[in-house]
Amino acid sequence: MTYCVAMRLDAGMVFLSDSRTNAGVDHINTFRKMNLFERRGERVLVLMTAGNLAITQSLVSRLREAMEDPDAPVSLWSVTNLFEAACHVGEVLRAVYRHDGSALREFGIDFNASVLLGGQIAGEAPRLFSIYAAGNFIEATPDTPYFQIGESKYGKPIIDRVLSSRTSLEEATKLALISMDSTIRSNLSVGLPLDLAIVHANELAVGSWASVDEDSSYFAMIRARWGDALRTAFEALPDPDELLASKAIPPGQ
Amino acid sequence: MTYCVAMRLDAGMVFLSDSRTNAGVDHINTFRKMNLFERRGERVLVLMTAGNLAITQSLVSRLREAMEDPDAPVSLWSVTNLFEAACHVGEVLRAVYRHDGSALREFGIDFNASVLLGGQIAGEAPRLFSIYAAGNFIEATPDTPYFQIGESKYGKPIIDRVLSSRTSLEEATKLALISMDSTIRSNLSVGLPLDLAIVHANELAVGSWASVDEDSSYFAMIRARWGDALRTAFEALPDPDELLASKAIPPGQ
Repeated sequence: MTYCVAMRLDAGMVFLSDSRTNAGVDHINTFRKMNLFERRGERVLVLMTAGNLAITQSLVSRLREAMEDPDAPVSLWSVTNLFEAACHVGEVLRAVYRHDGSALREFGIDFNASVLLGGQIAGEAPRLFSIYAAGNFIEATPDTPYFQIGESKYGKPIIDRVLSSRTSLEEATKLALISMDSTIRSNLSVGLPLDLAIVHANELAVGSWASVDEDSSYFAMIRARWGDALRTAFEALPDPDELLASKAIPPGQ
Repeated sequence: MTYCVAMRLDAGMVFLSDSRTNAGVDHINTFRKMNLFERRGERVLVLMTAGNLAITQSLVSRLREAMEDPDAPVSLWSVTNLFEAACHVGEVLRAVYRHDGSALREFGIDFNASVLLGGQIAGEAPRLFSIYAAGNFIEATPDTPYFQIGESKYGKPIIDRVLSSRTSLEEATKLALISMDSTIRSNLSVGLPLDLAIVHANELAVGSWASVDEDSSYFAMIRARWGDALRTAFEALPDPDELLASKAIPPGQ
């Protein structure tokens, strides 16, 4: 599996992905799931993928081909806003489906792919889209400022409790890394290294990019201290003595 | 969906289940998922179910029928240890499958059911089993002292960080409630009231039982303070300033 999370905040955007892919537990490999496209001062796009690697690699190859082909009718360089960009990614995903869908079905393989696409194109605010395998998509709003794809459930509760549109990029980055750490601890199929990209609003460029691996002192600190902090918070809450003393009669016994 | 968690500790066992069932978002109902069977001083069994409600209700009805039938060749009253009890539950689940499986398949419905069975029968220690839809099962060990069924991922990270076999019943109950709270907050399909049962080792009886609903002051405290505690723990960790300053060149860009 995969875990990717993207956040669209007032201050900009945070993107974080792991890099583990697996088919069963034997074929475990490292593949980048984050793709950056930047024309400084004009547009910056970040695309992350989860699902069947053959499908998502085909998607990214086709997107890149169009970007390199001056005669392509549309590409991520030519679209004039993020909505058009999401439409384009959806259309290319549908082209992959037309090419591969029936062959996969014959082998009993689902057409499993999901995409997060975010960034900013000059003339509009930063935007974030979650694109489904069918090529349709939804957009993040101030009420729902983040999307996840892949193995998303383990790392969702902490984001739900902390994140809002007003969260700073520093805190959102910390939050994304904590969410990833919770996922990695509870699920073998998500693993290091991580790709982290941060885009400041209205800079129209990748603000920072880092590969986070075993040598990252910050992530090592998160791994060590977040667990301790959770245990301390847990111990500070009172025990449920009244529940242990409860002798209610269960219904229907 | 459903969320149930059971823990087998040195001090005894903790069982917690929610009570929401849904088919889509329209048919939301409250059904108990926890069943207690007790002959004080001789045996205590707790059975929790998740999955298709028609399947799991049929399972429980058949188990109860056998318990009330003095001529039944085997029942949860007659088995002499927990392993036999798990075998029996698995066999009855297979009988449900033989009865309903092909009809469900014709409607494209999976035979989806999972069961947690724990307790103690005089002559052996407390034991806990997780029983799959196929009727096979695994047993909890000191290394893996808990099982979850249903919507398990949201509430797993906090258990993974805190629980061990040496955890007290008080702390394990608190932990199960925090895990449930995280699940309820992130997933609409899990909801109050909760059923909570605690079994002390070697008492061979239900030690305490409680229905936890909106009026439970302890659970209200957990809901209010755990979120605050998480946010405080979050804020206490340093921000990833060096990652935001990172200007590494992404590979392949």
